[in-house]
Amino acid sequence: MKKITFDTRNCSVSQALNVIGEWWTLLIILEAFFGTRRFSDFERHLGISKNVLTDRLQKLVAQGILARVPDPGGKRHIYKLSDKGRELFPVIATLMQWGDNWIMGKGNAPVRLLDKKTGEPIARVTVQSRQGHDLMPRDILMEAGEGHLPEFRERFGVRPGKSR
Amino acid sequence: MKKITFDTRNCSVSQALNVIGEWWTLLIILEAFFGTRRFSDFERHLGISKNVLTDRLQKLVAQGILARVPDPGGKRHIYKLSDKGRELFPVIATLMQWGDNWIMGKGNAPVRLLDKKTGEPIARVTVQSRQGHDLMPRDILMEAGEGHLPEFRERFGVRPGKSR
Repeated sequence: MKKITFDTRNCSVSQALNVIGEWWTLLIILEAFFGTRRFSDFERHLGISKNVLTDRLQKLVAQGILARVPDPGGKRHIYKLSDKGRELFPVIATLMQWGDNWIMGKGNAPVRLLDKKTGEPIARVTVQSRQGHDLMPRDILMEAGEGHLPEFRERFGVRPGKSR
Repeated sequence: MKKITFDTRNCSVSQALNVIGEWWTLLIILEAFFGTRRFSDFERHLGISKNVLTDRLQKLVAQGILARVPDPGGKRHIYKLSDKGRELFPVIATLMQWGDNWIMGKGNAPVRLLDKKTGEPIARVTVQSRQGHDLMPRDILMEAGEGHLPEFRERFGVRPGKSR
């Protein structure tokens, strides 16, 4: 599969995928959320080749998603999620829940995410209004944003005098 | 970039990526959320080649994410999101918000998602407890689920007698 970059497209989803959409990248981030920090642990848990792992970790460090810091307990380095990386948690959680529901099927979730405080499973992640109501795609209006291209304005419209 | 499949891994995130992780696939789904239904419109809006678009649409139909139905206003077909497809909305929304915040930067969002009822921007999508509190990665406990592999049990633990 030829890699296609979307760099030139003015779309946040393409831009996000450009950074985290390569094979293995999101699984490495998932592992980091599971607490993995050492190269050898990423390698072992993912069953990934050293070459590919090195490539992906370098890119994640270059993008500021992982920080490469000295290992306090060894001679090597460890990889820690930055704020930019930690804010991918909702992306990972929604992918996991969708996979649990639509691919693994009921009762087959390999890993459960629990609220540490109560021990209960976390809620289904939903898109919500500012008032906290769940919103389905039909409840959403798209509007060209501040950084829109003329083609987006034509397509989605923008309300006059609106600023946020 | 060689395509690697994760079919054999017992992980919902890998399984989800196996279905929607190919280049273009999530952008096609994003377009479908924007209301695009015709082949020629996907082609035009995405600037994607006919061959690749055909391949991705076929796979999405085979996976039950898009339904291919006769175009009520023409001789061709249109592609509509199924329930399985619509439930990818939180995945798309979280990717968009992360891209808006961390790549495009403040004030550069190309598209805004608004609550149709109030006209206000939707809330930031967060992982929440059942009581509706935002949960950060540090607030989460991982536990081997019902469909876990022995290696997951060893790694994350599972509480005895726990069933949900």
